[in-house]
Amino acid sequence: MGPGESATPEDNELAFAMGKGIAKNGWVLLSGGRSFGVMDAALKGAIDGNGLTVAILPWDDDKQSSEAAEIRIVTGMGSGRNIINALSSHILVVIGMAAGTASEVSHALKAGRKVILLNQDEITIRFFKKIGGYKVMVANSVDEALKMIKDYIVVHPVN
Amino acid sequence: MGPGESATPEDNELAFAMGKGIAKNGWVLLSGGRSFGVMDAALKGAIDGNGLTVAILPWDDDKQSSEAAEIRIVTGMGSGRNIINALSSHILVVIGMAAGTASEVSHALKAGRKVILLNQDEITIRFFKKIGGYKVMVANSVDEALKMIKDYIVVHPVN
Amino acid sequence: MGPGESATPEDNELAFAMGKGIAKNGWVLLSGGRSFGVMDAALKGAIDGNGLTVAILPWDDDKQSSEAAEIRIVTGMGSGRNIINALSSHILVVIGMAAGTASEVSHALKAGRKVILLNQDEITIRFFKKIGGYKVMVANSVDEALKMIKDYIVVHPVN
Amino acid sequence: MGPGESATPEDNELAFAMGKGIAKNGWVLLSGGRSFGVMDAALKGAIDGNGLTVAILPWDDDKQSSEAAEIRIVTGMGSGRNIINALSSHILVVIGMAAGTASEVSHALKAGRKVILLNQDEITIRFFKKIGGYKVMVANSVDEALKMIKDYIVVHPVN
Repeated sequence: MGPGESATPEDNELAFAMGKGIAKNGWVLLSGGRSFGVMDAALKGAIDGNGLTVAILPWDDDKQSSEAAEIRIVTGMGSGRNIINALSSHILVVIGMAAGTASEVSHALKAGRKVILLNQDEITIRFFKKIGGYKVMVANSVDEALKMIKDYIVVHPVN
Repeated sequence: MGPGESATPEDNELAFAMGKGIAKNGWVLLSGGRSFGVMDAALKGAIDGNGLTVAILPWDDDKQSSEAAEIRIVTGMGSGRNIINALSSHILVVIGMAAGTASEVSHALKAGRKVILLNQDEITIRFFKKIGGYKVMVANSVDEALKMIKDYIVVHPVN
Repeated sequence: MGPGESATPEDNELAFAMGKGIAKNGWVLLSGGRSFGVMDAALKGAIDGNGLTVAILPWDDDKQSSEAAEIRIVTGMGSGRNIINALSSHILVVIGMAAGTASEVSHALKAGRKVILLNQDEITIRFFKKIGGYKVMVANSVDEALKMIKDYIVVHPVN
Repeated sequence: MGPGESATPEDNELAFAMGKGIAKNGWVLLSGGRSFGVMDAALKGAIDGNGLTVAILPWDDDKQSSEAAEIRIVTGMGSGRNIINALSSHILVVIGMAAGTASEVSHALKAGRKVILLNQDEITIRFFKKIGGYKVMVANSVDEALKMIKDYIVVHPVN
């Protein structure tokens, strides 16, 4: 999860590497499916890693979807689909921050999902730790985030 | 698409065969993902045909999902997820009829999606033809429904 | 509930009279809130009867709302808001028929709400009786529909 | 907007006073409608001030609604209804903070709504200022928040 228009080049690079790492581990990558920013970069990374990609789209068709989105869920709900992104993920990796991204993290924490904050500033980390407690983990690199997911899956196997 | 609890044995047999046919053609099967009725039978048929299955779940987790659902989208929206089933499908095949199913067909027609009515009675066919016009097609067998999908895809290729 | 663009002049006249009757009985009128068709006519009738009106809007702001909508609920969900129309109503009165309207009736029946079909044709009545059973009532005039609501409220008082 | 179970006594006192102030100014109070915490207290305050109250409920009926909720919108969407709370408000006043509340503030900022943070700690203020900029205002008392709303309405009249 992460910003669209307001993603930085660094956010997008990290998202591509993260998506590729997720795919190479055999996991499915799910994102909001827009054609730019963190969503697009993560999907492209996963395709580059020969993974399966799922996009939860805000529009009522898939015409503006990222090309790297294979399974396209069309919600017609605008940002209302953000809660579906959160609920459908076993674990969220969050790169970059904007209002839409913050709604996804908040919905995830409300529903008891784990959240890995990657490359976030101090204020963001302190805020989400305050409302999410132990469910919020902080990673400083893609490798560290992948390691956290592996450790999580050992304890919480996905059937 | 089709009923859960109220599905007849014939509905379930048709749904299994339809799901298998969809998979064998290389298409992705999407359903509401509950663990009984037409949704479950279609997913199991698709798995039997070595296909990929997607479920749009009504609950806020996937604990009650059909075991045959591979990609599980967790909406937390109850029957509010029915419109997502409709919007996310390139074409709907409808087996059996109940109130939830009728909402899916109605949403699909409102959004301009094609609907194939399989094994439906005269009242159902006449009602949906009345509100959906040419978007509603009637098939009398699984093979006929598969043929309709093939013809549709030739004209409307999925990217 | 009823069609927007495709409403007939007779649908709109009935909707205005129905909305006015609802208001004069002291009940709140809820509709989909668009600025034409049955939704708009019913809201205008309720205002004419000095009633309170509520609109469940499909857009992410209220700029295109019917002027007769007082309480404006902004969903941003498009036709996904139709289930909210159904769930939020103690009883639905349905005038005219189109795909969106059919989704509202279907959602209402799925959720166990009572539906009064007013001025509907034989196919529509038979279809919804088939999927909704005793929850579907048929009225031939606004007065008959108002009488049905009164009788319902005596047995199911609204707190 | 504000927490349910995790609201502090101070949050609830402020919410009651804020709800009453909103009502006395002739404005409609909208909340998430649960029967405890900030939602309930604000609704009760508004009733005490002879105002009109609207609740956007998460369940598929209104049985667990706050008694102080007059217009009850039944969404069946769980926390998915939080975006409707945000979109339907001309301005949000936020008392207390938890994951659900954070999703409402995030959705509001994403959609360009104004947010008044009342009685919030430094981390919360800094985080939302970071993602919301000038749309985020900070009030230190109910009177200050009411003054901000009045000033806003002068410039952005509600039709």
